[in-house]
Amino acid sequence: MSHQDVLRAAGLTDGEITGGTLAVRSPIDGAEVARVTETAPADMPAVIARAQDAFRAWRTVPAPRRGELVRLLGEELRAAKDELGAVVTLEAGKIVSEGLGEVQEMIDICDFATGLSRQLYGLTIASERPGHRMMETWHPMGPCGVITAFNFPVAVWSWNTALALVCGDPVIWKPSEKTPLTAMACMKIFDRALARFGDAPEGLVQLVVGGPEIGEALVDAPEIPIISATGSTRMGGIVGPRVAARWGRPILELGGNNAMIVAPSADLEMAVRAIVFSAVGTAGQRCTSLRRLIVHSSIKDDLVAKLVKAYDSLPVGDPRADGTLIGPLIDQASGDRMQSMLEQARSEGGTVHGGGAAGGVSGGTYVKPAIVEMPAQTETVRTETFAPILYVMGYETFDEAMALHNGVPQGLSSCIFTMNMREAETFLSAAGSDCGIANVNIGPSGAEIGGAFGGEKETGGGRESGSDAWKGYMRRQTNTINYSAELPLAQGVKFDI
Amino acid sequence: MSHQDVLRAAGLTDGEITGGTLAVRSPIDGAEVARVTETAPADMPAVIARAQDAFRAWRTVPAPRRGELVRLLGEELRAAKDELGAVVTLEAGKIVSEGLGEVQEMIDICDFATGLSRQLYGLTIASERPGHRMMETWHPMGPCGVITAFNFPVAVWSWNTALALVCGDPVIWKPSEKTPLTAMACMKIFDRALARFGDAPEGLVQLVVGGPEIGEALVDAPEIPIISATGSTRMGGIVGPRVAARWGRPILELGGNNAMIVAPSADLEMAVRAIVFSAVGTAGQRCTSLRRLIVHSSIKDDLVAKLVKAYDSLPVGDPRADGTLIGPLIDQASGDRMQSMLEQARSEGGTVHGGGAAGGVSGGTYVKPAIVEMPAQTETVRTETFAPILYVMGYETFDEAMALHNGVPQGLSSCIFTMNMREAETFLSAAGSDCGIANVNIGPSGAEIGGAFGGEKETGGGRESGSDAWKGYMRRQTNTINYSAELPLAQGVKFDI
Amino acid sequence: MSHQDVLRAAGLTDGEITGGTLAVRSPIDGAEVARVTETAPADMPAVIARAQDAFRAWRTVPAPRRGELVRLLGEELRAAKDELGAVVTLEAGKIVSEGLGEVQEMIDICDFATGLSRQLYGLTIASERPGHRMMETWHPMGPCGVITAFNFPVAVWSWNTALALVCGDPVIWKPSEKTPLTAMACMKIFDRALARFGDAPEGLVQLVVGGPEIGEALVDAPEIPIISATGSTRMGGIVGPRVAARWGRPILELGGNNAMIVAPSADLEMAVRAIVFSAVGTAGQRCTSLRRLIVHSSIKDDLVAKLVKAYDSLPVGDPRADGTLIGPLIDQASGDRMQSMLEQARSEGGTVHGGGAAGGVSGGTYVKPAIVEMPAQTETVRTETFAPILYVMGYETFDEAMALHNGVPQGLSSCIFTMNMREAETFLSAAGSDCGIANVNIGPSGAEIGGAFGGEKETGGGRESGSDAWKGYMRRQTNTINYSAELPLAQGVKFDI
Amino acid sequence: MSHQDVLRAAGLTDGEITGGTLAVRSPIDGAEVARVTETAPADMPAVIARAQDAFRAWRTVPAPRRGELVRLLGEELRAAKDELGAVVTLEAGKIVSEGLGEVQEMIDICDFATGLSRQLYGLTIASERPGHRMMETWHPMGPCGVITAFNFPVAVWSWNTALALVCGDPVIWKPSEKTPLTAMACMKIFDRALARFGDAPEGLVQLVVGGPEIGEALVDAPEIPIISATGSTRMGGIVGPRVAARWGRPILELGGNNAMIVAPSADLEMAVRAIVFSAVGTAGQRCTSLRRLIVHSSIKDDLVAKLVKAYDSLPVGDPRADGTLIGPLIDQASGDRMQSMLEQARSEGGTVHGGGAAGGVSGGTYVKPAIVEMPAQTETVRTETFAPILYVMGYETFDEAMALHNGVPQGLSSCIFTMNMREAETFLSAAGSDCGIANVNIGPSGAEIGGAFGGEKETGGGRESGSDAWKGYMRRQTNTINYSAELPLAQGVKFDI
Repeated sequence: MSHQDVLRAAGLTDGEITGGTLAVRSPIDGAEVARVTETAPADMPAVIARAQDAFRAWRTVPAPRRGELVRLLGEELRAAKDELGAVVTLEAGKIVSEGLGEVQEMIDICDFATGLSRQLYGLTIASERPGHRMMETWHPMGPCGVITAFNFPVAVWSWNTALALVCGDPVIWKPSEKTPLTAMACMKIFDRALARFGDAPEGLVQLVVGGPEIGEALVDAPEIPIISATGSTRMGGIVGPRVAARWGRPILELGGNNAMIVAPSADLEMAVRAIVFSAVGTAGQRCTSLRRLIVHSSIKDDLVAKLVKAYDSLPVGDPRADGTLIGPLIDQASGDRMQSMLEQARSEGGTVHGGGAAGGVSGGTYVKPAIVEMPAQTETVRTETFAPILYVMGYETFDEAMALHNGVPQGLSSCIFTMNMREAETFLSAAGSDCGIANVNIGPSGAEIGGAFGGEKETGGGRESGSDAWKGYMRRQTNTINYSAELPLAQGVKFDI
Repeated sequence: MSHQDVLRAAGLTDGEITGGTLAVRSPIDGAEVARVTETAPADMPAVIARAQDAFRAWRTVPAPRRGELVRLLGEELRAAKDELGAVVTLEAGKIVSEGLGEVQEMIDICDFATGLSRQLYGLTIASERPGHRMMETWHPMGPCGVITAFNFPVAVWSWNTALALVCGDPVIWKPSEKTPLTAMACMKIFDRALARFGDAPEGLVQLVVGGPEIGEALVDAPEIPIISATGSTRMGGIVGPRVAARWGRPILELGGNNAMIVAPSADLEMAVRAIVFSAVGTAGQRCTSLRRLIVHSSIKDDLVAKLVKAYDSLPVGDPRADGTLIGPLIDQASGDRMQSMLEQARSEGGTVHGGGAAGGVSGGTYVKPAIVEMPAQTETVRTETFAPILYVMGYETFDEAMALHNGVPQGLSSCIFTMNMREAETFLSAAGSDCGIANVNIGPSGAEIGGAFGGEKETGGGRESGSDAWKGYMRRQTNTINYSAELPLAQGVKFDI
Repeated sequence: MSHQDVLRAAGLTDGEITGGTLAVRSPIDGAEVARVTETAPADMPAVIARAQDAFRAWRTVPAPRRGELVRLLGEELRAAKDELGAVVTLEAGKIVSEGLGEVQEMIDICDFATGLSRQLYGLTIASERPGHRMMETWHPMGPCGVITAFNFPVAVWSWNTALALVCGDPVIWKPSEKTPLTAMACMKIFDRALARFGDAPEGLVQLVVGGPEIGEALVDAPEIPIISATGSTRMGGIVGPRVAARWGRPILELGGNNAMIVAPSADLEMAVRAIVFSAVGTAGQRCTSLRRLIVHSSIKDDLVAKLVKAYDSLPVGDPRADGTLIGPLIDQASGDRMQSMLEQARSEGGTVHGGGAAGGVSGGTYVKPAIVEMPAQTETVRTETFAPILYVMGYETFDEAMALHNGVPQGLSSCIFTMNMREAETFLSAAGSDCGIANVNIGPSGAEIGGAFGGEKETGGGRESGSDAWKGYMRRQTNTINYSAELPLAQGVKFDI
Repeated sequence: MSHQDVLRAAGLTDGEITGGTLAVRSPIDGAEVARVTETAPADMPAVIARAQDAFRAWRTVPAPRRGELVRLLGEELRAAKDELGAVVTLEAGKIVSEGLGEVQEMIDICDFATGLSRQLYGLTIASERPGHRMMETWHPMGPCGVITAFNFPVAVWSWNTALALVCGDPVIWKPSEKTPLTAMACMKIFDRALARFGDAPEGLVQLVVGGPEIGEALVDAPEIPIISATGSTRMGGIVGPRVAARWGRPILELGGNNAMIVAPSADLEMAVRAIVFSAVGTAGQRCTSLRRLIVHSSIKDDLVAKLVKAYDSLPVGDPRADGTLIGPLIDQASGDRMQSMLEQARSEGGTVHGGGAAGGVSGGTYVKPAIVEMPAQTETVRTETFAPILYVMGYETFDEAMALHNGVPQGLSSCIFTMNMREAETFLSAAGSDCGIANVNIGPSGAEIGGAFGGEKETGGGRESGSDAWKGYMRRQTNTINYSAELPLAQGVKFDI
């Protein structure tokens, strides 16, 4: 299927993919796939006003009814799974299984959010005053700006949107400039759900396409109380304070520099498989990709040898082809950054295995994933590079391993491979991993939607997806109702007039 | 008792209240009460380092044991209630009952936090993968900077500290420059609890005294992940983005512009009492003070007449005296601001009742509380003035009342007086009050500690005290534990090497 | 459509509806609709053993995967809504809208349970011992016997089954002897879901058809830890102790004697509509049907007059016909009981309006609903009669109304109509309604699936459907994990060997 | 100190401990310590009526105020810890440290319940209907009968009473006939708390002393909705169905037959200490005492040898003496039962180590704890004997160990010692331990009060103490409030009159 056929199968019309100002290239072959129309900055006030209007209507629609829209979205996603997955592959370069997995994640969150729509639990609370009742309710917050990155071009949107919709919040979506097509394909699916639903307010979910100016319009709009932004720490470091400055609520999902500790008792065969998947899956371009390996000295050489061998056999190439496990990097700039970081690592004493150019489709940036044995946790190691580089360091004591583990500015995901329950539990304890996600005997990547997703430190502190992450999309209200004819004051204060 | 005797009774030594650089005056009579030593900005790094060290020890102390320290603090507060209350009266000018009420609130939160210390509940969560277990745990976060305001010189500290300690976080407290003595008296009490407790790490709770430079050192310290700041919207508007910029977590409790809607069916006698207490209590210097009255036209004249009459009989004066209901403003500047706002209100068409100077102790700023009938919700009404001014506006329809109610930038507390269940429920609904606190048939002020305290919009979005506000002092970690010998990927992704 | 065509449309084969020993009659016309095969008591041990085997397999299937089966069930129910609704109408005599509503309730609970399948939340809990972790997990409990009544021939099964399946428990379903066909039609739908699901263990949901002997086999089987039984208080009074005697867990949903208080401030027009629907809907054969009306004396005559008038115009007749609001009673015995109770009420001083025979389809038992003005809450009033009888009593004071309200042995559902917030809140308070369900300004009947459903006193105390009712289908386990090398005892006990 | 001095120190008067009909003997020396007055069965109706009256008053006292009474009880318990502990030692024969530990548990639950008194959280729930609000509230249930056993003569009462009081329920306490004095001493302490509290209703907590007739009066009283009974499975098997038969709610805490699996990787030194404490502590008379040891064959001989050696050195004797670790059995009958079971075990092929008479105070029943190596899990092993007998069995595979573990009728507590995280996690999984309590690397005994305490199968299914065990003392109410002017039906049912 040609690139254009993929887009057509996903419902995009020729008019939508031609004639615009934003050129979209496929990382598969670097070819220009489409030219799409950008949202004019001057149109943003109208977009925002539409979202506000939609909010006033949507917030009073009962949550289970709002959930019905999300349920329908799930149904439509099930029906269009292959077509949408193909666009993910086309535009983000993911292998087919990962493209489908991303859509599956969207479906899962829709199911979860549908159930949630009959919950959104607040609390009833014992009051200290006779004839008084206390409770806590969660109300819709307002429109939610969702800024997504190229590497999960649709799943992150769905995490935010499924929850926001159920919580009563309209959405304005600004996808990465590199992946507007996936977003457009997604909106087609959403529109079908909307049509079946019937009476949703206009402008409930709006797509805006374009560059920083568009994003900034959202970030600075006081009418958009929630900004959920996924991307680099650099971006988040700008967005967070700006949203805070206008009294908004940022939900930040930023960089990770995720590590695995491999203890002497680890099931090495399992560890190798987990490492390879989490380090090279999505060509190392997941925010939860494994980037650092902290291995007990007694097994380090053995493990590295096994990994180097496994890496050698990994099929790099066209992500659409059966059997490919590593597709292209998103673009040539990304490949250049990878080389430059490998160079830097070498200069710091690192030994690099792999990392060179790989075959693949002409025009795309295909690389062999790299394993880099490092003498210490240098600045290079402490930096997140969005490419398949895995730094390996040795350790002697568990405390040393934990210190290396936590010794980076990011705090997203983490894991340990060990059969020893004391090590496993310590890793999960208050003195263990400082990340938002900490796993035992599975890699750092591939979270289930039932848990809250997000991280600490420079990862930004936001939480999305499961558990009570939905509270990030609502406002909490504490209520006291006096149904007595008395007016007692709290804390026994006396004030008799 | 002389001012100094009050301080001595609270355990402050002459050495502590003399010889320093920070002059402290009592609003009762404007007299200089003490000169206390300020923390040198150059000492802040050491203070912060001590907090970090304390954190590393405290986080692994079991939470119920941490709770024992807070329980002991509660016991010591019970024992020193009168003495501490007297310092509150001396330094903040509160009437005796309110000073004691503030200490009672401290005691209540200690009891609550003690119980919490055996909870700090996370979740166990159903996993989609066989042989996997998921859970969510809450871990200590790190040192917590607590910046408090003059009007609740100790309660706000205790809300934060009781929770922070139980949650495993050391505290650095920067009180208002106007109320260092209450803070010092408080630390004496805490030290007694600490002595009984036995083996807490040094530097668990530290007091720093001084001005903006000290506060900024906390706000900008990456080693202090949590900054809880109570005060003006202006202050919070600076603190929030600065904390965000260095990846910290702000908990902001800023200004309120709290309103009451009085519906035709209201129990007017109750409403009058509620209005008077919440508008003039603490001389209108609570963040939850009632500032705006939105009254149905049919009862407005009657209600205003009743209020004017009630105001006339309110005893203003020495807060230490029996029967006094309104003590002094915090200082002359505050009194000047009040006059200037009243002037501005007049120029906008307002009719002012009361508001002039009152007797009281010479040297203090004593004012008669003011009722101002306004033709509309002007900019003056939309501004929080920390003084006993109550703006009154009329309404015809409930929708109009709600629009007036929500038509201000602040979002702390709110209430309605009505006997009509439809109005009451609508006020509490998604389309009702946009505040963090919304009450029925009680005033906006005087929250119980069992509910989460805080507000939306320019109030800053922070939550303290009850419900799950404790989560603000901890970090959440999502855990997946694989105890199988398989390595399935989430979302059914296939990646076989 | 003939009766048989309705059954065929629902997928029942001629073989299934003929040749058996259990004659099934339609309340519409009293005609024998089918003769179905009964489960032999001697087969029960094998049925139970199959459920046990299924349990051992199903409990380790991840809950979200179990949820997928329930999601598919929801999809199949959506597809077969009309056909299944028609069987409900045929066999239980419900009007079309109610038959469909019952299926909708099944669909809703499937959606809810699907979301739940990624939750089933237990707690992580702060431990008092260093190096220890505490948590609470919920595990599958074992096979669940579900005994349902004729009046909700499928919804009650679905409440139990959707939750039980997600919770990891197989189900053995014994429907009322009066409604086996609906159950059989339901199993057809379930089988389609099962086929799409793929690899569920055999015997996951089993249907057993027959009389008391079959039910007793379930009630007395120690291998069936949970018995959920819906029906009369008489039945529950036998089942509860028997299940308890063999260490099982009963979930009882028994009789209601549901009342409405109508206060002077009530919106009478709304009240009339609510009363009529909840008193005569399903011909008064809901467990939540309104049976007692407690009306303030000042409005009693007016309200009764309005009701009598409304009752007069209610279309009684063929439940399949457009416009019918009241279908037949389940059988002639039920009609006889109704007449006998009306007679008894008359003898106690009651004034009966309506209650006589109505037209309708020949062979069915069609009655006019009755309003009975009673001088006091007599034994007759205190008895639940499963027919459209509404007893009306007057009251003077609110306390008197509450005393009447709570003065019956049953405790299922209840409501008040009032505009007065004090009355509404008091009704919901600790001193108010003693029922499991208490509503304001809606009738006692027609609960949403998001709340827990069930009642107190002789209603049996069970809870089903929403909130945390799922915990009734699981066992709770409290875990402490020591990952330290020490062995401290709780409560500081010393025991040094 | 003489026995009588111990009682006097605990505040019991000579009048209270003489002249009654119930002779109380100390297990220390078999001496008659007191003769106390029994409650006449004829007085029970008055007792129950007082509890009902107290309930009507107490249920409307705000929960945090109720919590204050429990807080004061905790304070009084702290003050009287030594004195009450001594009575426990005197009457139940516990060693001093365990007597004090039991009082500490009372103190802990008071602290916990005090915090709980500002929670008692229900839920607010999203409604499917516009203009409707749903919530779930927890209300006081009614008087709670608490039937306790001799082995925890006060702690179990406090677990129930602290929660019941906070939940709004009065208590009627029937202690074991063997330990009325501890109960009386406890009531003295409670009375002091009551006096400080001030205005509690009369009859809030009542003590009834006597035999089965008294207990039956509680069990059969419909006015006592909750019966919490701790004791033997035989007793619970009678109480459960009887309470169920009159629509009450039993909370049963019955026998345990608690096992430990010791895996090859276990830290044997820790295991030995854990085994000894949990098998012989309280002379094997805890419901959570370790009774079965399931040891991997590879380490069985070694472990048994270590245990036999450790057992040899255990000091048996006067529980009041320093250094004693094993006090007397409760009475001679208990000693006889132990011998008879050992004999039976021998006849089944068991090898008995220890188990003979030990020295100790003349008149008491002092035994050496027994270790019995068993060839299989015989009926004797499957029976709970309330004495220090530890049966040891070997296993080869983990599955075999789990089968042995779960192969008994009781289901209270359980544990595994292993360093292997896979075994640990499997033990805690749905396919692992079937007990209410399951621990890793700590013994089965000595639960913290923060978790829910109780067990499955013949242990009775009740839960007390922490987590949401408080819900067992309250009734749940689901509320829907319609504040709209419409009357939509759930599930979209149409019923237009």
